[in-house]
Amino acid sequence: MPPSAHPATDVLLSLFVVFVAAQVGAELAQRLKLPAVVGEIAAGCLIGPAVFGWVAINEPLSVLAEIGAVLLLFSVGLETRLDDLREVGGTALSVGVAGVVAPFILGAAWALAAGFGTAQSAFVAAAFVATSAGITARVLAELGALNRLESRVILGAAVIDDILAMLLLGVVSAIQGGGRVNVAGLLLVLGQAVGFVVLVAVVGTRVMRRSSAALDAPISAHSPLSLCLALCLGLALAAAYLGLAAIIGAFLAGMVAAEAKQRAVLEHQVQALMAFLVPFFFVVTGAQVELRQLASWPVLGALVLITGLAVAGKLLGCGLGARRLGRRSALIVGVGMVPRGEVGIIVASLGQRAGVFGGSTYALIIAMSLLTSVLAPPLLKRLLATHPPEAPAR
Amino acid sequence: MPPSAHPATDVLLSLFVVFVAAQVGAELAQRLKLPAVVGEIAAGCLIGPAVFGWVAINEPLSVLAEIGAVLLLFSVGLETRLDDLREVGGTALSVGVAGVVAPFILGAAWALAAGFGTAQSAFVAAAFVATSAGITARVLAELGALNRLESRVILGAAVIDDILAMLLLGVVSAIQGGGRVNVAGLLLVLGQAVGFVVLVAVVGTRVMRRSSAALDAPISAHSPLSLCLALCLGLALAAAYLGLAAIIGAFLAGMVAAEAKQRAVLEHQVQALMAFLVPFFFVVTGAQVELRQLASWPVLGALVLITGLAVAGKLLGCGLGARRLGRRSALIVGVGMVPRGEVGIIVASLGQRAGVFGGSTYALIIAMSLLTSVLAPPLLKRLLATHPPEAPAR
Repeated sequence: MPPSAHPATDVLLSLFVVFVAAQVGAELAQRLKLPAVVGEIAAGCLIGPAVFGWVAINEPLSVLAEIGAVLLLFSVGLETRLDDLREVGGTALSVGVAGVVAPFILGAAWALAAGFGTAQSAFVAAAFVATSAGITARVLAELGALNRLESRVILGAAVIDDILAMLLLGVVSAIQGGGRVNVAGLLLVLGQAVGFVVLVAVVGTRVMRRSSAALDAPISAHSPLSLCLALCLGLALAAAYLGLAAIIGAFLAGMVAAEAKQRAVLEHQVQALMAFLVPFFFVVTGAQVELRQLASWPVLGALVLITGLAVAGKLLGCGLGARRLGRRSALIVGVGMVPRGEVGIIVASLGQRAGVFGGSTYALIIAMSLLTSVLAPPLLKRLLATHPPEAPAR
Repeated sequence: MPPSAHPATDVLLSLFVVFVAAQVGAELAQRLKLPAVVGEIAAGCLIGPAVFGWVAINEPLSVLAEIGAVLLLFSVGLETRLDDLREVGGTALSVGVAGVVAPFILGAAWALAAGFGTAQSAFVAAAFVATSAGITARVLAELGALNRLESRVILGAAVIDDILAMLLLGVVSAIQGGGRVNVAGLLLVLGQAVGFVVLVAVVGTRVMRRSSAALDAPISAHSPLSLCLALCLGLALAAAYLGLAAIIGAFLAGMVAAEAKQRAVLEHQVQALMAFLVPFFFVVTGAQVELRQLASWPVLGALVLITGLAVAGKLLGCGLGARRLGRRSALIVGVGMVPRGEVGIIVASLGQRAGVFGGSTYALIIAMSLLTSVLAPPLLKRLLATHPPEAPAR
C-alpha cells in the first residue's frame, strides 16, 4: 500500500457512492411499485461510465460485487428446502422441468438464429431459464396468497427450477471455460457438474440435518453463521475449481444450510449481510450496461422479441406442466414463473465476464431480465384478484 | 477484468483461506480461555508472509480488512450510549480522563526516550490510550458482575475513553497526514477534529433520537440498517476528507445509530456483518506482523517495558480516578481498563499504513495490545471473586 495516511479515501468514496445510489434507486423503484432490483440496476447504469461516470469499476468494487452475488445465491439456496417439494411434488416437478425446457429451447433457437455459436447459444439459453422466486414470493405474500394451491406449486417449482438452472449453468459455464464441445469432453463436464450438484445436495443436506445441533456446540457465539459462511466460500471455491460458476457452490451451500435447525436465525443474519453487499452486485452489474447499445431499432426489436420468447417459454412450459390444476390456475402458475430477476442477471454477468456476451447481448439480457420482473407482478396481482381459489388450499 | 470464465478463483481462494484461518484461530483461542482476537491475529501471523506465506495481502483483502475495521468501530460506537454515563457520571469521567492522560504521558515518554520524533511519539502514545471495553465486558458478563458498581464505572469510563481516544487519534493522524507541527497548524487540526467529533456526537445523536421512528417509514424492509450503513460509510469518508482516520467517522456513526429506537435489531444485524468482515481485518493485521522483528533480546525487552508501562498507565490513571470508591474497587476498575484489544490494534495498523511505524514498532504495539488483553481478564476474574461488592449496586 502507498505510504499515505489515508490510502482508503478513494475506495471509501466509491463504496459510499455505490451504496447510496443503490439505496436511492431501490427506494424510488419501490415507490413506483417496481422491484427494488430494477432501481438498483438503473442506479448503476446512471452512475456508471455509460451516463454520469461517477464511479469506475475497480478491483475492490468487482470483488465486493462478486461477494454480493455469492451471498445472493447463498440466500436463494437458503430458501430452497427439499421438504417444500413433498406436498406439491408431482405438479411442481412437471412445472419446474417444463419451465426449464421450453425457455431453453426458445432461447437457444433465438440465439442460433441470431448467429451465435453453439457454446454461446447455450449460455444465452441458460439466461432464459432462470426463475426469480423472490419477486413472485413477495407479490404472493403482499396479497396474502401464499397458501393458495397455485402459490405452493409456484414456489415448489421454483426450487426445482433453481436446481435445474444451476445444473444447466454448471454445464454451460464449464463448456465455455474449457472451450471443448466434443462429445467426450461434454460428457466429462456434464458428469462433473451433475456429480457435484447431486453429491452436495443429497449428502450435504443429510449431514446437515443430522448434525446441525452440533453447530451450537463451539464456544463462539456466531458459530452457525461463521461455519455456514465458510461452507459457502468453500463450496464456491470448489465449484470454481471444477470449472463451474462459483455461485453454484454458494447456492448449494445455501441448500445445505437450509436444513440446519438454526435456519431462521441464519436467514436474518444473511439478510443483514445481503443488505450491505448485494447492492454492490446490482450497481456494478448496472454500471456495466452500455445504454447506447440498446439505442437502435434492431436491438430494441430484439429486446421485444427475446422478452416475448422468455415470457412465452414460461407460460407454455409451466402452464403445460400445471394443466391438471385447470386452465386458470395453470395460467397463474405460468405468470408466476415469468420473472427472471436476479438469477437471469447473474447469468448475464457471468457471460459478460467470461467474454461470451458482447456489450449488446449483455445489455439485452439484463434488460430482458428486468422487463420480465416488471411485467409479471401486476399481471399476477390481477389474475389472483379476479380468480378466487378453485380448490381450498390443501 | 481478464476475459476468463473464472477470474475470481484466486480471490475466492484467498477469502476462503483467510476466513477459515480466522475461525480456527478464534476457536482455539477461546478453548485456551483467551480472547478470540488473539487467535485471529495469531492465525494471520501464521498464514501470512512471515511464516507459511499461504496468502499475499492483495488489494481486495486490504479493502475487506478496511471495511472490517470500519464496521468494528461502528459497532464500538453502537455500544457507546451517552445515557450510560449519567448514573456513574462523575466517577466515570475522572476514570476515563485520567485513564487517557496517564498512559499517554507514559507512552510518549517511552517513545521520546526511544528516539522517535514528536509526531511519531504522539502516534505511539495514542496506541497506549485505547481501552477495549468489549473484552472487559465479556469477562464481567461471564461472572454475572455487570451490575456491580465497579462494572458500571468501567463501562461508563470506557465510553469516555473511546471518545477521547478518537479525538486524540484524530489530532494525531491529522498532524501526521499534514506533517505540520507548528502551533497554528496544530490548532487548526485540533479545531477540525474536535469540531467534527463534537458536532456529530451532539447534533447527530439528538437528530437520531428525535427522528429514528421515521426510519421505519420507507417501504424497503431493511431501511434502518441500510441507512445506518450509508451513514457509517458517509461519516467515515467525511473523516478521511478532514484528514482524520476513517474509523473515527465510523465510530461516530455508531454513536448516532445507538440512539435509534431500532438499536437492538441493528446490533444483531451489525454482529452478522462483523462475523463475516471483521476476521479479514484481524487476519490481515496479523499477516503484516513480521515475527522475526520480535525475535531479539532488545525488542523483547522493549515489549516487556511498554506492556508494563501500558498496564501501569491504566492502573495509575484509572485507579486514581476511581479512588473515591475505595482502594479495592479502584484496583478492580484499574485492571478492568487495561485491555487494549482491537482499538490498540487499529491504531497500530493506522500507524503502519501511514508509514509512521516500522516493522518492529508495529509488531511491538500489536504484541502489547494482545498481551494487555490476555493478562487482564484472569486478574480481573480473581479480583472480582475475592472482593465481594463493597456497596450494593446503586
